[in-house]
Amino acid sequence: MKIAILGTGTVGRHLARGWLRAGHDVVLGSRRPREARSRTGDLPLTDLAAAVADAPVVVNATPGTASVELLASVGADALAGKVLLDVAVGFTADGSLSHPGESLGEEIQRTFPATRVVKTLCTVDRKLMIAPDSVQGPSTLFLSGEDAEAKRTVSGLLRDLGWPADCLLDLGGIATARGQEHYSLLFIGIAQALGSYGFGIRVVEETARPA
Amino acid sequence: MKIAILGTGTVGRHLARGWLRAGHDVVLGSRRPREARSRTGDLPLTDLAAAVADAPVVVNATPGTASVELLASVGADALAGKVLLDVAVGFTADGSLSHPGESLGEEIQRTFPATRVVKTLCTVDRKLMIAPDSVQGPSTLFLSGEDAEAKRTVSGLLRDLGWPADCLLDLGGIATARGQEHYSLLFIGIAQALGSYGFGIRVVEETARPA
Repeated sequence: MKIAILGTGTVGRHLARGWLRAGHDVVLGSRRPREARSRTGDLPLTDLAAAVADAPVVVNATPGTASVELLASVGADALAGKVLLDVAVGFTADGSLSHPGESLGEEIQRTFPATRVVKTLCTVDRKLMIAPDSVQGPSTLFLSGEDAEAKRTVSGLLRDLGWPADCLLDLGGIATARGQEHYSLLFIGIAQALGSYGFGIRVVEETARPA
Repeated sequence: MKIAILGTGTVGRHLARGWLRAGHDVVLGSRRPREARSRTGDLPLTDLAAAVADAPVVVNATPGTASVELLASVGADALAGKVLLDVAVGFTADGSLSHPGESLGEEIQRTFPATRVVKTLCTVDRKLMIAPDSVQGPSTLFLSGEDAEAKRTVSGLLRDLGWPADCLLDLGGIATARGQEHYSLLFIGIAQALGSYGFGIRVVEETARPA
């Protein structure tokens, strides 16, 4: 599957290598591909519009505070009908969420109503994203989005990164992206306590009651 | 140890039974103990001031949007020097956090500087609070607070509820209460997806690298 990854930061590059390894046709998209070349190495790289053009799946790995503007520069028409896998979380300069009480995922879905937004992967570090077995046991990944088919497509792409199907938890519509994005503050707290971003969280369900 | 639990809702009553079971001297405190009697059954119950009077540990299990006002009615002097175990999270009428970008725990600590606030237990349902083995494996509980001795006291009280020491993660100062409180939105999303509040989350750390 052709996957356009917008953003050439460490998250975008990690995801590119993860999906290339799984055999997908991946291209990175940058506002300034010439300047980005120094950090993208041998990864396929072009401008935003060219990356998106014939890719059914677009990944938003741009900084969360710039994402809507960058996607708008690509254009709602160019993004219409596509699956948009949104991994970004926006932080203001003082470390607060850029969308308190709401979410970037919802803003993107509202701004591009013809695009099928699925929020996921934003609760783990870039390394765990593509190496889910790097931690001491399975951890849980969450999905939020309005379109069931888009969530199936994204679930398949997550399995291609190594995430077992029973580690994926569909939270419901795009409004549930709030939970994923607000978790960032606990994520940072746990990372500082452990001295490492290399951790996941596992949802541990109730013990089944005797029948 | 004498523990005063402010709030006679289901959280306060569950915690009261948990610590009574462990042999502690527990009293519930209510603004209107006569009216509260119908729901507190045989649990020791008095007014807020009397409950706090000779208890070294005070538990805030009042509604998060009313907590600061209720604690102020008890008085900063009456709360000075005490350990205040804060489990509350405030939600506005539309379901948003009452302290976006901040936390109730911080507001309480700022308002009562002579009181030693420890935020914990707010990431799990009342049932799991006092029955940590009701889920399929250990889950993690978080602590936030400025005072190391207060956190040790609270850790002991959590162990008395059945939480193993290696399930407790000290996140640092009271500002890290933001993470615990902001997680509420993900907690609600997970609960709706599972159809149950009976779950915890476990922090799954990185596999140790070979030496």
